[in-house]
Amino acid sequence: MPKPGLIECFPAPSDAPLVVEHVADEFTSVCPKTGHPDFGTVTLRYTPRAASAGGVCVELKSLKLYYQSFRNEGIYYEAVTNTIRDHLGEAMKPLWLQVVTDWKGRGGIRSVIRAEAGEVPAHFRGR
Amino acid sequence: MPKPGLIECFPAPSDAPLVVEHVADEFTSVCPKTGHPDFGTVTLRYTPRAASAGGVCVELKSLKLYYQSFRNEGIYYEAVTNTIRDHLGEAMKPLWLQVVTDWKGRGGIRSVIRAEAGEVPAHFRGR
Amino acid sequence: MPKPGLIECFPAPSDAPLVVEHVADEFTSVCPKTGHPDFGTVTLRYTPRAASAGGVCVELKSLKLYYQSFRNEGIYYEAVTNTIRDHLGEAMKPLWLQVVTDWKGRGGIRSVIRAEAGEVPAHFRGR
Amino acid sequence: MPKPGLIECFPAPSDAPLVVEHVADEFTSVCPKTGHPDFGTVTLRYTPRAASAGGVCVELKSLKLYYQSFRNEGIYYEAVTNTIRDHLGEAMKPLWLQVVTDWKGRGGIRSVIRAEAGEVPAHFRGR
Amino acid sequence: MPKPGLIECFPAPSDAPLVVEHVADEFTSVCPKTGHPDFGTVTLRYTPRAASAGGVCVELKSLKLYYQSFRNEGIYYEAVTNTIRDHLGEAMKPLWLQVVTDWKGRGGIRSVIRAEAGEVPAHFRGR
Amino acid sequence: MPKPGLIECFPAPSDAPLVVEHVADEFTSVCPKTGHPDFGTVTLRYTPRAASAGGVCVELKSLKLYYQSFRNEGIYYEAVTNTIRDHLGEAMKPLWLQVVTDWKGRGGIRSVIRAEAGEVPAHFRGR
Amino acid sequence: MPKPGLIECFPAPSDAPLVVEHVADEFTSVCPKTGHPDFGTVTLRYTPRAASAGGVCVELKSLKLYYQSFRNEGIYYEAVTNTIRDHLGEAMKPLWLQVVTDWKGRGGIRSVIRAEAGEVPAHFRGR
Amino acid sequence: MPKPGLIECFPAPSDAPLVVEHVADEFTSVCPKTGHPDFGTVTLRYTPRAASAGGVCVELKSLKLYYQSFRNEGIYYEAVTNTIRDHLGEAMKPLWLQVVTDWKGRGGIRSVIRAEAGEVPAHFRGR
Amino acid sequence: MPKPGLIECFPAPSDAPLVVEHVADEFTSVCPKTGHPDFGTVTLRYTPRAASAGGVCVELKSLKLYYQSFRNEGIYYEAVTNTIRDHLGEAMKPLWLQVVTDWKGRGGIRSVIRAEAGEVPAHFRGR
Amino acid sequence: MPKPGLIECFPAPSDAPLVVEHVADEFTSVCPKTGHPDFGTVTLRYTPRAASAGGVCVELKSLKLYYQSFRNEGIYYEAVTNTIRDHLGEAMKPLWLQVVTDWKGRGGIRSVIRAEAGEVPAHFRGR
Repeated sequence: MPKPGLIECFPAPSDAPLVVEHVADEFTSVCPKTGHPDFGTVTLRYTPRAASAGGVCVELKSLKLYYQSFRNEGIYYEAVTNTIRDHLGEAMKPLWLQVVTDWKGRGGIRSVIRAEAGEVPAHFRGR
Repeated sequence: MPKPGLIECFPAPSDAPLVVEHVADEFTSVCPKTGHPDFGTVTLRYTPRAASAGGVCVELKSLKLYYQSFRNEGIYYEAVTNTIRDHLGEAMKPLWLQVVTDWKGRGGIRSVIRAEAGEVPAHFRGR
Repeated sequence: MPKPGLIECFPAPSDAPLVVEHVADEFTSVCPKTGHPDFGTVTLRYTPRAASAGGVCVELKSLKLYYQSFRNEGIYYEAVTNTIRDHLGEAMKPLWLQVVTDWKGRGGIRSVIRAEAGEVPAHFRGR
Repeated sequence: MPKPGLIECFPAPSDAPLVVEHVADEFTSVCPKTGHPDFGTVTLRYTPRAASAGGVCVELKSLKLYYQSFRNEGIYYEAVTNTIRDHLGEAMKPLWLQVVTDWKGRGGIRSVIRAEAGEVPAHFRGR
Repeated sequence: MPKPGLIECFPAPSDAPLVVEHVADEFTSVCPKTGHPDFGTVTLRYTPRAASAGGVCVELKSLKLYYQSFRNEGIYYEAVTNTIRDHLGEAMKPLWLQVVTDWKGRGGIRSVIRAEAGEVPAHFRGR
Repeated sequence: MPKPGLIECFPAPSDAPLVVEHVADEFTSVCPKTGHPDFGTVTLRYTPRAASAGGVCVELKSLKLYYQSFRNEGIYYEAVTNTIRDHLGEAMKPLWLQVVTDWKGRGGIRSVIRAEAGEVPAHFRGR
Repeated sequence: MPKPGLIECFPAPSDAPLVVEHVADEFTSVCPKTGHPDFGTVTLRYTPRAASAGGVCVELKSLKLYYQSFRNEGIYYEAVTNTIRDHLGEAMKPLWLQVVTDWKGRGGIRSVIRAEAGEVPAHFRGR
Repeated sequence: MPKPGLIECFPAPSDAPLVVEHVADEFTSVCPKTGHPDFGTVTLRYTPRAASAGGVCVELKSLKLYYQSFRNEGIYYEAVTNTIRDHLGEAMKPLWLQVVTDWKGRGGIRSVIRAEAGEVPAHFRGR
Repeated sequence: MPKPGLIECFPAPSDAPLVVEHVADEFTSVCPKTGHPDFGTVTLRYTPRAASAGGVCVELKSLKLYYQSFRNEGIYYEAVTNTIRDHLGEAMKPLWLQVVTDWKGRGGIRSVIRAEAGEVPAHFRGR
Repeated sequence: MPKPGLIECFPAPSDAPLVVEHVADEFTSVCPKTGHPDFGTVTLRYTPRAASAGGVCVELKSLKLYYQSFRNEGIYYEAVTNTIRDHLGEAMKPLWLQVVTDWKGRGGIRSVIRAEAGEVPAHFRGR
């Protein structure tokens, strides 16, 4: 079961604008319909609020453990994407946040799901 | 014969904005002029209407079966692209929808046909 | 000698907006200066006028034959590109049209020539 | 239904040793178990017998039509590979012949099947 | 727990020599030391015994389910590779069999483990 | 310890606008948490002020030595990126400056950190 | 010594808008500091003025000879880029012109220098 | 018409063993059946006889002109390959010689034809 | 200073033949001449002795720490390669062992050094 | 003028067998016929004699300077290759030595020249 409680944060390093991107190539969950495992890549992008405004960044190891908590969860692509956006948005309250999940093929069809919160800069949209 | 009746939908997961992309690498139809098979990739992108507004997503397996219904159809590239846009637009009534078909070479010429409905975001146009 | 008379068209499939792209990898003409053959790729992109407005698309086989008519023509890169734009623009009268020729190296220099007519959408310019 | 009668041959061009390789990227048949289409690449390699010994080569267009005759056939990967080897071996009686089929993924597993007849040279085995 | 009982076989298609290769990109097990998931690709190659000698091939869907039975197993790379070789060798008794596991990086080190049984042809060794 | 004193500059070549990009593939520092080395690529982009306004460029060899001063420093990704931006901004006072650090995977997650100062042109943002 | 006198031009083919791009992969000059050769790629892009306004294009062979005149010149990356922009701008007086030099690594750092004159279209900037 | 008279040779540089390989990416001839142009790559490999034994190498520019003499010739893939082997073998009388022609797709099938004379070293066969 | 004492081993999993390959992308040492860091990839391949004969495998984490002990060592490419072969050969006493170091470019020259002990199988030599 | 006197050697590190490979991507000389520069890659492979037998390795920086001495030399591909083999063979007297020069295209033809001395191991031949 996805465990948002695993997410840990640390204070943003400064007030200067920063874009953080973490690409996890080894995400797996389970298809709720067939029970077969799904494999994909999860890309997270965000800008923390300024340090002086209490901005925080997600800690990498905790992010990995949080992603691992989907391992045996029966859940659709769209729900995985929405859930990660909501959990991380809640934990970090960043200026903006983007989650892109890119799934290996099923029946000859590969899928990419994009979810966003806040004002994602134009140059990251659609990536 | 293309069978739009095969398309099944499920409710959009939430009201939060979501972009869905399905890339089918194994599309084949038949050239109406020569009777020879055509092979291509069909990319579908769309944003469902909000869940609270009755928005729906196309179900992946049904999409695959719908695409398979073109297998022995004599039909031009342009008509394939238009037909898929119309059938899926009808079935999902999404905020916007884009269909790109990318065809293997014939006589040394490769072709890409793009069709759209609604306001396709700038960062997806021309892809 | 380039033969625009070889170009055949068929009615655009509908009034819905469509972008058509044909990439010909096997184009060859002759350098008017050295008499040596030039080899390149010709990419054509356009949007036909609406079907109800008499819009037409270029027929693929005729396009191939038209391109073959440059085979033994002594002609510069820039003139090839301009000529194709003019001939196809004349034949289809599309909403907009873009011709990109990409030439294999000569003396360690590779060249790309882009010519346009009408309002080429921003996302195709420079490609 | 696979139609070996479609295969046409022409006399080998000379007695000098020749290796011929034809790679068909657009092969499709149907899975006999699920009824879903399979997509793959078929690679054929062979050395015709000497022209003076009545050696022949398979004609390219007829090879394409022969491959197309599998389009709606329910048949396993292994049987496709064996069948093509047998039919072409029968038609050409070459010095040796190799058929390799390379199938797109099903359930996350991609497959390659290799069948041979006669003395395939060491440098082609396992390719 | 790896379940060799999931492996199903079907009779080899003929007595003619055949090399079968199945590449599973979506293998995952668990590191027995750290409890973190490992991800890798499993390549299986073998030649079944002749049909007339009772030779069999592994059925693809059962192979996939068998691989999935490692999902939550704490097991080292080397043991995964040895176990698969032993289970499949037992089930198919092929002329020869090769199992290659290719693991994503841990601590900046990627690993490949190769195990064999019987006389693997020279052109497959080291691949 | 990062030594900004190693950075040397030379006068910008002219008043004409210039964009300079230096990509260092061989950056290494140490994770302050685990003590293990981190490896990454550091991309620097900037436009010097006009020569007539006292604009300067960073000298390549000194840049390399400056980067090497992080070799045995325990420091987080985000702090590396911020520090380089601050040190180089201080040394060159350019019109704008962008620092992108792209880190090899840790635990299956690759990271990219982007920091900026001044008005980075739109076409470089998000790269 | 760079010899701008080597640059020859010919009249632009028409008044229709044209973008010309020449990519020279085999550029070499000498580092003025170390005396070691530098190797890079020079990309030139421009739009000639209209033919009716006396617009001209650079002749390819003369461009090659002009580039060769840098072969034994001790000159910095930035100066190479500026010099080429100035010489070609002078010779062609184009609507706009862009010169990008992309240098092979020195000490683990690769460099790209971009210089422009006139209004370079947005879709070419930063390339 | 292929003109072997265009082939010029120069004395081999020494008696020490040398392997020469020339890859021509821009070969074109005409299909005798359809009249459409064929495009391919011609790879030539050979070892000249020792200089002291009168060994010669083919001169590059003459080789290019010789290849150009096929430009408007109606000729099959196999015959192109055989003809080049015979003409070059005649002209150079090398220790061994290999000609590989690699043709762009026709009807979804790409072809490679290999012809040899003399004792081609094992490590070049099948390439 | 390279610390062979960091290398830990565990018993080989069985008597069945196994080839183990570990590729470390993040190796760095220091050039003894210039004091500048060198970066490279270290590939280790070996077959452990049979389990029943006391065969052992190198433990991955200890291998990583051992490689890290070269980080600030001034040492030539050839000596790095020889030293790793000797240390690991000593620690594991494998049937055979191969060490390949692949170094990033210095002054435009990339280097690969290969060292071996025992009977390296033919299919791994030269890789 | 090629200056073999620039080549410096250092004692081989041990008696254990070692294969050394240096790939120089930035080689340039001048075509004696046209006066135009040629660009290529020079790959050197060799095994030094045992240290106890006085074996030596070529020093990298001196190798670079030696290669640079061809910069303004008018010399054919084949002679470059032969000359390097002779000069390095003379300087190092290795067990075996292989020189491969790989040249950028001229007139659409790319060339590779291979020269050898001594017993080049089978797995390096033809590379």
